[in-house]
Amino acid sequence: MATNREKTLLQRRDFLKRSTLAVGGIGVGAAGVSAALLAAEDQAEATGWPWPYAELDVELVRKRGHVYYYEGGCMYGASGGLLSVLQETVGGPWAGFPHDMMRYGGGGIAGWGTVCGSLNGACAIITLASGKAYGKITNELMAWYGTTAFPSEAANRYAANHEYLVEKYKTDAVLPTTISGSPLCHVSVNTWCRETGFASGSPQRAERCARLTGDVAAKAAELLNAFARGTLVTGEFEQSECSSCHFMGENFESGQFIIGKGTNCTDCHGADPHGEIELPGSA
Amino acid sequence: MATNREKTLLQRRDFLKRSTLAVGGIGVGAAGVSAALLAAEDQAEATGWPWPYAELDVELVRKRGHVYYYEGGCMYGASGGLLSVLQETVGGPWAGFPHDMMRYGGGGIAGWGTVCGSLNGACAIITLASGKAYGKITNELMAWYGTTAFPSEAANRYAANHEYLVEKYKTDAVLPTTISGSPLCHVSVNTWCRETGFASGSPQRAERCARLTGDVAAKAAELLNAFARGTLVTGEFEQSECSSCHFMGENFESGQFIIGKGTNCTDCHGADPHGEIELPGSA
Repeated sequence: MATNREKTLLQRRDFLKRSTLAVGGIGVGAAGVSAALLAAEDQAEATGWPWPYAELDVELVRKRGHVYYYEGGCMYGASGGLLSVLQETVGGPWAGFPHDMMRYGGGGIAGWGTVCGSLNGACAIITLASGKAYGKITNELMAWYGTTAFPSEAANRYAANHEYLVEKYKTDAVLPTTISGSPLCHVSVNTWCRETGFASGSPQRAERCARLTGDVAAKAAELLNAFARGTLVTGEFEQSECSSCHFMGENFESGQFIIGKGTNCTDCHGADPHGEIELPGSA
Repeated sequence: MATNREKTLLQRRDFLKRSTLAVGGIGVGAAGVSAALLAAEDQAEATGWPWPYAELDVELVRKRGHVYYYEGGCMYGASGGLLSVLQETVGGPWAGFPHDMMRYGGGGIAGWGTVCGSLNGACAIITLASGKAYGKITNELMAWYGTTAFPSEAANRYAANHEYLVEKYKTDAVLPTTISGSPLCHVSVNTWCRETGFASGSPQRAERCARLTGDVAAKAAELLNAFARGTLVTGEFEQSECSSCHFMGENFESGQFIIGKGTNCTDCHGADPHGEIELPGSA
């Protein structure tokens, strides 16, 4: 399946992985240095996976996430908050990251309202920085998002005190907070707008998302820092009662025909989605 | 706001953008060559945005998307289908792309069922390859996904004839098709499973997603090829009646409190989501 060239590059990648020093739980070492020694076409293999990491200043990431939202939206913002501080703190391959690629995630990808772009951008950087542990760290971020009141107290304080990095604020008011219960842009924005009375095209809503973007980037930095120190604890999070039957499994008849997680199934499926259907064991 | 170093790099990026030759509607030129001449830490600036593009073999992209799904899931698959062919066709900065980063999007990001990972991966590569036109191209892909029967006839034929690049198939059966009406993994998978009777953890469902992943990558290549030739036509697509009031706008009272697009609002919101609420003008 893999061509000979692919196999050679794979072997080279494995070699570079083996020659990487493990520091603080995340590989930090020869990868960045090696990159400069190899031809441009071999850069991916040279930098390997994960890319090197060092502890980030969480509050700087929060402020950078906010200002990059102003420049390119939520996915560009959250990834930029992490990326710009990684470029200064670690350097190496991070300086070569094509940040403009992250512009597509705004408004849940081209305005379709799917996943909140701040999560999309943060999860990309988490995966690049943490390697095979990415699954548990991104899962933790997704779960945290749905249960957190945005914008955070820190975010509202930075705005009120003009401590963010923007020169002209969309608004510097302390904004009301909501908990979305969902990682979707559509639900997150709709929940905030409906509960606060601001329109989705208002400067207040845009500023709410800018602050949220910084908050998500900062949480990602917190999780990555804990992972790097070896102190990250990921745990169980609340799941809907529905998930006791409806999960990703191999038995269709018992309800294993979905992919998804969350607490708010009934928001879309209604309070009694089974209706008149006879449930297994209920006869 | 930007540091002096940031400003210098921004100026350098602008210079490299200006020195890029426009070929076939997408910039192709000095960027890839320059990358090898500069230090590793300046790679992002050297490669600029968009990255160079040349017409791709759509059917090869479809087959590569399928095989990369087997290796890393839907986001890794769709991006890998495009990326691997770009690496061979164009080379330059594409060879340095950190493909492993794309693993996070599987199952709608860590199994949360948000955006279909094949869309997430394809939109990332579209954005990197098309520059400022990314919005209309990704929007076209998102709209097409929701109205298309997956897996495609081509995909089912490749499986039946063992023309894919995998050695051992999850299944080589011709699979039934469904139209999801949504870019969400949760809806896409649930719709297919419910209509076909296969569980979400079944090899048939995994194979369906592998074929869909190739199909989405192939469509992205089709769109990028058309854009590169200057023949891309993007148009209006069907929107829910609800969207005549509920869109991203500045007037909260008239219903402009959402972000999102689509045809199937009532799937989640019910047939008469207004219920007893008096509508404007209905008194």
